[in-house]
Amino acid sequence: MSETTLRAEKAGKLDEADELAALRERFVLDDVVYLDGNSLGALPANVPDRVADVVRRQWGELRIRSWDESGWWTAPERIGDRIAPLVGAAPGQIVVGDSTSVNVFKALVAAVRMADGSRDEILVDATTFPTDGYIAESAARLTGRTLRAVTPAEVPQALGERTAAVLLNHVDYRTGRLHDLPALTAAIRARGALAVWDLCHSAGALPVGLDEHGVDLAVGCTYKYLNGGPGSPAFLYVRREHQDRFDSPLPGWNSHAEPFGMTPAYTPAPGALRGRVGTPDILSLLALEAALEVWDGVSVDAVRAKSLALTDFFLECVEAYTEPGRVECLTPARHEERGSQIALRCPDAGEVMKRLIARGVVGDFRSPDVLRFGFTPLYVGFRDVERAARILRDELL
Amino acid sequence: MSETTLRAEKAGKLDEADELAALRERFVLDDVVYLDGNSLGALPANVPDRVADVVRRQWGELRIRSWDESGWWTAPERIGDRIAPLVGAAPGQIVVGDSTSVNVFKALVAAVRMADGSRDEILVDATTFPTDGYIAESAARLTGRTLRAVTPAEVPQALGERTAAVLLNHVDYRTGRLHDLPALTAAIRARGALAVWDLCHSAGALPVGLDEHGVDLAVGCTYKYLNGGPGSPAFLYVRREHQDRFDSPLPGWNSHAEPFGMTPAYTPAPGALRGRVGTPDILSLLALEAALEVWDGVSVDAVRAKSLALTDFFLECVEAYTEPGRVECLTPARHEERGSQIALRCPDAGEVMKRLIARGVVGDFRSPDVLRFGFTPLYVGFRDVERAARILRDELL
Repeated sequence: MSETTLRAEKAGKLDEADELAALRERFVLDDVVYLDGNSLGALPANVPDRVADVVRRQWGELRIRSWDESGWWTAPERIGDRIAPLVGAAPGQIVVGDSTSVNVFKALVAAVRMADGSRDEILVDATTFPTDGYIAESAARLTGRTLRAVTPAEVPQALGERTAAVLLNHVDYRTGRLHDLPALTAAIRARGALAVWDLCHSAGALPVGLDEHGVDLAVGCTYKYLNGGPGSPAFLYVRREHQDRFDSPLPGWNSHAEPFGMTPAYTPAPGALRGRVGTPDILSLLALEAALEVWDGVSVDAVRAKSLALTDFFLECVEAYTEPGRVECLTPARHEERGSQIALRCPDAGEVMKRLIARGVVGDFRSPDVLRFGFTPLYVGFRDVERAARILRDELL
Repeated sequence: MSETTLRAEKAGKLDEADELAALRERFVLDDVVYLDGNSLGALPANVPDRVADVVRRQWGELRIRSWDESGWWTAPERIGDRIAPLVGAAPGQIVVGDSTSVNVFKALVAAVRMADGSRDEILVDATTFPTDGYIAESAARLTGRTLRAVTPAEVPQALGERTAAVLLNHVDYRTGRLHDLPALTAAIRARGALAVWDLCHSAGALPVGLDEHGVDLAVGCTYKYLNGGPGSPAFLYVRREHQDRFDSPLPGWNSHAEPFGMTPAYTPAPGALRGRVGTPDILSLLALEAALEVWDGVSVDAVRAKSLALTDFFLECVEAYTEPGRVECLTPARHEERGSQIALRCPDAGEVMKRLIARGVVGDFRSPDVLRFGFTPLYVGFRDVERAARILRDELL
């Protein structure tokens, strides 16, 4: 039996045994193998009708009354509570709104302000998605702190009495490496600094355990594994014990204790909604709210188990099908160091990805030489994985 | 002939002579008199189908390809150029994205950084919508400046060698008072400071003339007179001559000269798109883009002329119908001091507004005693005005 026949059969068996397989029906998908859900999640099937209702009835008919009657006003915290169980947070600690970049700014400035005033250094993940580093530089500049970029592995050594806050990515956007959030958070807190985590590539892909592991602040996007739609609003987690000291650099009227009091002095609201800023972006928020319904009855642990099985199987197929040395895997083999994506390096990655996409296998290319494949367990199956590896083999020849 | 018959006839004639009357067809409206477009603009009729296409086809079918193929990536500056003529700006100076509050922060910090470093004071409109004051306080704190609240009338006297920047509202959200943007901007610039204007209550309601009057920076929302939808993204204007010095406090990857270079060092893009931050919120942006099509062939001067005629007529009807002293008009009588709303004060305003809404006249209440009526010339007619005044009379008895 050929390598491909063998693995095609195995894929079929894995799909049959997959207890999450039926979730694919909750999405609008075609026969493309969509491995780019770590960039833009696929469209949940219930979103179009919901958005149409928001536009036609809530905006078009109820108009301004919808701020109360359609629950527009409370959407940021209500949707935050919907995300909370997916990242291991009790209710009342997450608000949704603004972009990830803006939330990184809020979180990092607030973290510096919570830290002891003598602590004058911010550490930032040197391997992070660039925006986090740019925003951290701005936060440092505006709060009079210095910024130092270190790899996550270097963090324990770099921590010291000067460290105010540390901004880290849970999963590296390029390599798919999963960092040890529990251990790093513990190390950061043990040295008296605050741990700020960017969950863009882990929220909805694997258990995060924000409450359990003592994370101080966290941000994440909702358009990757949470399938909220292009540029859907990000979320901000503020640990309950810090909420009274959360001092936002963006104290807009929506975070005021009495937003319609229209008072000249700012008095922050209690709780997570202190992280709100301006008028919430309703169309995008309510599209996201509908998208989160695909999680009804779904366990993040089951999603994680399937994710690892999918990436294991992809690596197995790639190894079996592809000439040794043709691609180099940048993603760690160890499960505890792997997110929900596989990054393969090859010199002609840009051209290879174009050909893959033309053949219906959609991943993405990260300059200069990385093929990136994201595996969303809610809608990717094992036959998809085998097919992707087979077509990849053809295009690498 | 009774007062009401007289004015009902006049209203009919005014409607017949109204060259903008047909624009009402471009909106989804019912038989309510909607005088709350200064809070949330009505739904343009072309928006639902456009949004459905963005969701179902662009997101659902093209998915990640839409960043290029559906023009998602360039939406912030493309839609900015669509707003530009409505506020008197040449192309290439406006980007759309984030909330008004976030844009006030960008504009004010950038203004302070452009000003001479010895200038250590920011002046802020003491009568402004509160969020501007809160955000100005934060901008001052983070840049080490002091903040002083003054009324717009006091600005010329308050300006001095210490003044770095002045943040003013073009139209007061409560009273509807229109401030003298050309004269105040000239006075501010003559003293070497930067003028930052908030156009939330003027964009789409009256000519602004940003380029002509030398405004340095401006922000505005798009969900009032621009009808972009609930919480639709705000806009930021950066005068062309300042763009190379625009130093954003929110330097996200979307404002990078090479956003997909993923480089650790931040190099700002040229032009207005330096005002971008994170991933643009596509559903809301493209709903707004569709909404702006109602402006095709519409002159802002004609809109302003009709707006003044509407508010004049409303005041005339209220005066004719209502017992003297029952309400006090807070909006200036002089055209050059009036925005596109009328604010009436009466002690029982909260109760009166509830009854008006129950009878199909939708304005809003501003604590503690203000009835606020916004007049959007694109869809409000003179018969609407007369009917609103007549029902107001009943509810004031």
